[in-house]
Amino acid sequence: MDHDAGWVVDLSMAPPSLHDNTADADRLQREIFRKTGIGTVAIDLALLRELPARLNNWGYRCRCVFFKSPGGSFLIDILPIEDPGMIAGIAVDLGTTRVVVELVDLVTGKSHLQKAFDNPQCEIGPDILERVHYSDRPGGLARLHRLIIEAINEEIGRICRKAGMARDRVYLMAVAGNTTMTHLFAGISPRGIIREPYIPAVNRFGAVRAEDLGIQINRRGRVFMFPNVGSYFGGDLIAGAFYAGFHSSRDISIIVDVGTNAEVLLGNSEWLVACAGAAGPALEGGVSEIGMTAGPGVIDAVTIDPETREFQISTIDDQPPRGICGSGMIDLAAALFLSGMMDIRGRLVPDACGDRFRETDGIPNIVLVPEEMSSTGEALVISQVDIDSLVRSKAAMYTILETLLNYVGIDFEDIKTFYVAGTFGSFIKPRSAISIGMIPDLPEETYRSLGNSSLKGAVRLLTERDAMDAIASIRDRITYLELNVNQDFMNRYSAAKFFPHTDASRFPSVSFRQ
Amino acid sequence: MDHDAGWVVDLSMAPPSLHDNTADADRLQREIFRKTGIGTVAIDLALLRELPARLNNWGYRCRCVFFKSPGGSFLIDILPIEDPGMIAGIAVDLGTTRVVVELVDLVTGKSHLQKAFDNPQCEIGPDILERVHYSDRPGGLARLHRLIIEAINEEIGRICRKAGMARDRVYLMAVAGNTTMTHLFAGISPRGIIREPYIPAVNRFGAVRAEDLGIQINRRGRVFMFPNVGSYFGGDLIAGAFYAGFHSSRDISIIVDVGTNAEVLLGNSEWLVACAGAAGPALEGGVSEIGMTAGPGVIDAVTIDPETREFQISTIDDQPPRGICGSGMIDLAAALFLSGMMDIRGRLVPDACGDRFRETDGIPNIVLVPEEMSSTGEALVISQVDIDSLVRSKAAMYTILETLLNYVGIDFEDIKTFYVAGTFGSFIKPRSAISIGMIPDLPEETYRSLGNSSLKGAVRLLTERDAMDAIASIRDRITYLELNVNQDFMNRYSAAKFFPHTDASRFPSVSFRQ
Repeated sequence: MDHDAGWVVDLSMAPPSLHDNTADADRLQREIFRKTGIGTVAIDLALLRELPARLNNWGYRCRCVFFKSPGGSFLIDILPIEDPGMIAGIAVDLGTTRVVVELVDLVTGKSHLQKAFDNPQCEIGPDILERVHYSDRPGGLARLHRLIIEAINEEIGRICRKAGMARDRVYLMAVAGNTTMTHLFAGISPRGIIREPYIPAVNRFGAVRAEDLGIQINRRGRVFMFPNVGSYFGGDLIAGAFYAGFHSSRDISIIVDVGTNAEVLLGNSEWLVACAGAAGPALEGGVSEIGMTAGPGVIDAVTIDPETREFQISTIDDQPPRGICGSGMIDLAAALFLSGMMDIRGRLVPDACGDRFRETDGIPNIVLVPEEMSSTGEALVISQVDIDSLVRSKAAMYTILETLLNYVGIDFEDIKTFYVAGTFGSFIKPRSAISIGMIPDLPEETYRSLGNSSLKGAVRLLTERDAMDAIASIRDRITYLELNVNQDFMNRYSAAKFFPHTDASRFPSVSFRQ
Repeated sequence: MDHDAGWVVDLSMAPPSLHDNTADADRLQREIFRKTGIGTVAIDLALLRELPARLNNWGYRCRCVFFKSPGGSFLIDILPIEDPGMIAGIAVDLGTTRVVVELVDLVTGKSHLQKAFDNPQCEIGPDILERVHYSDRPGGLARLHRLIIEAINEEIGRICRKAGMARDRVYLMAVAGNTTMTHLFAGISPRGIIREPYIPAVNRFGAVRAEDLGIQINRRGRVFMFPNVGSYFGGDLIAGAFYAGFHSSRDISIIVDVGTNAEVLLGNSEWLVACAGAAGPALEGGVSEIGMTAGPGVIDAVTIDPETREFQISTIDDQPPRGICGSGMIDLAAALFLSGMMDIRGRLVPDACGDRFRETDGIPNIVLVPEEMSSTGEALVISQVDIDSLVRSKAAMYTILETLLNYVGIDFEDIKTFYVAGTFGSFIKPRSAISIGMIPDLPEETYRSLGNSSLKGAVRLLTERDAMDAIASIRDRITYLELNVNQDFMNRYSAAKFFPHTDASRFPSVSFRQ
């Protein structure tokens, strides 16, 4: 990283003389402009008062921390150039269930500690809807706001202690969350988000004073919240698109972020179309009795030998199996289908399943892990109901993608890079997802896992001062497509409920037994 | 005034619908942009939190108070459109000795109450130098700052009581003062102003939060301080130039502001040159024993019948005479010279002075008002020493003007309007000043009194949102000319010490006896 490309710049000015008697503050402004191209930075009165003595003591050499947001640019602090301490920023991935916080050195651009904790608002309600309702009760919004602010403050405290630095060395914070989480973080009522016409209070929050939010970092520190496009397309996705570089490439890319909703962004540096739709919770591992999010002992990969129909199961950290996550389910479904144990309609084939087939209360099941090998002492079983749920999810996912591309008028083959975001994206095997027809049959190298792209987008913002323009350009270019569940959509959806698809010619690489 | 040209705009937006589901804050931003062309206004978190409920309650019709400064634009408040109260601003002429405060209705642009009071910093020291030295002592700066802030707060309190409104109805304040007064007002050390290389701490203060300054107006109110060009050319003069319209006219104009220093600004909308020089305190009425600033009983005009040599003396408010002010002195000198009672070198001519001539301790005097007619019971007498002082002042004034025009390469005849600022400007008779050769021999209609142009500039800023660009364009275009007292300057000065000038052909309209 170019050390001069971020929010900290080292300046060395000629001291004032009779030939160049610009005022101290203006001398600094002039030098900031020379180095960064930023015309005027607002300087807080308290800092303005200290400026002349500091510049003079330091021989007109200093290290400036500044920031720019759509509302204006400001100088946050000036320090001696030899200052040995870290000048830090905090990136926050503000998830509905998990919050991840990362310490970033604003000078080197390097990431240091990363910590994750459960969003304490979960104690109020696990999902967005419950929290929005709670926020409408007397004192509800204030409590939700306080919970998240206090939790982040505590985490910053722990991080700073671990890094051996004072809180006031943290000058910037970048927060990427969905629209509701960002509203609650800012202490702004999210009530409009769930009520017709479904509008957030704010889309562009800008860079707020940390002090006004109650965030305990440097007293002049700023907190930037990634902007939303609307109620269903939040700052977390903008952060991801920014991290993936949607502002700088003319190649068409797509990002798919799968959670309770599937959120999709398609386009390039010239145009962007977004949509979101319920892809079904099956993909998050939330439906089947043994479904769970990734963790030790959770099955994340399944292969079945097509000849012997022997199962190869791998778990996270190689712990005895206790459940299965979304990507494990996709793997399993692909393996069952490719080995002929499941037909093109997603129905378990008793003959092909052999010993593993069971029927309970008239519902077909397949045993994934027998009692004696499971960590719970009970067999890990997937039922036809679980599979049906997965079928609906994968069909919805494919239909959303198809509808979006159809709207724009391009083919799947036009997509150069297909990013899969989130934890889901880190574990999913594109080959399996293609096999069940959840994602298009593109060369495997087209697919890329983005990891925690919200967090990475927030980190990138803290280290690149061009970020602000890039983010604004992404946000402002997005056309949000409302997915109308009309006849067209339903027809596509029905066709996609087959494995891999009614029109198998769309998946030439998937060879399966029938 | 166009009611929509100021810092208050009335907005009427379509309420959100499924077809136009922009967030509330962004809806407001979009409408502000439509009305004002200002792209993004920063919105304080506290206001952002209240925004959606307010907009909703008011049916998406509201009155916005906003402000723009070089560092950024911000929304100060939103009110219901039917709000009956005044939305006010306060203009401040922050003089070294007197402070004038005016209440302005930001919606109608009308000025209401005006109040003046002595700058309470006078108790520390009457002049700038003493205050700068005092500011360097422990606690000195804080005390000077507190004195002026508290005095202004008290005055705002009185004005608000008189206008029957609450303090929080004042949203904006514009302050025009010289460089040192502005520093003390901001609580910023002025020490560099009087020490080589004579640089202020700050030239462009921007719009500071009233709260940060301790100014008791609306809690989100902003205080704009006019920028300085340097130590000797302050915001008061920029305010005057703005009031006179130097940003919008291609005709060449000049402003002369006479105080302890004479400050001069020459140019048009394309270029500006400024300088300042000691024109001598004689012009402020500060030298002769009977010299004083304008007030009741102070002689402000003198005429002498050239035939009978009878004196016609007028005093302010027609009170019995007790002294003479600067413009009175100029009038007197012109009358003495034109009547032959003073020669071209400024020496009293005993024969021509007749009875009025006296000599005390070898120094010639002329009696202006005999004992029996003076309010003090003593004769009001002007000595040769007083006249010599005036000669030095008027010669310095003319030399400064000549040097400045010479530097730019234009003639006096190229000047379309010659503004004289300040109290001095309100009383001076151009005819008299021309007669003694203090100002060039231009048609009398070229001369215009600007009155309290600092205050008027501050008022104009509060009522015109284009003001900010105009002020920046004036400030940034000014070339400050350091007057070097070199041989050229001294030669010109010597020539200007005659009445009206060694080269009498420069003053063809002045006919005098020799």
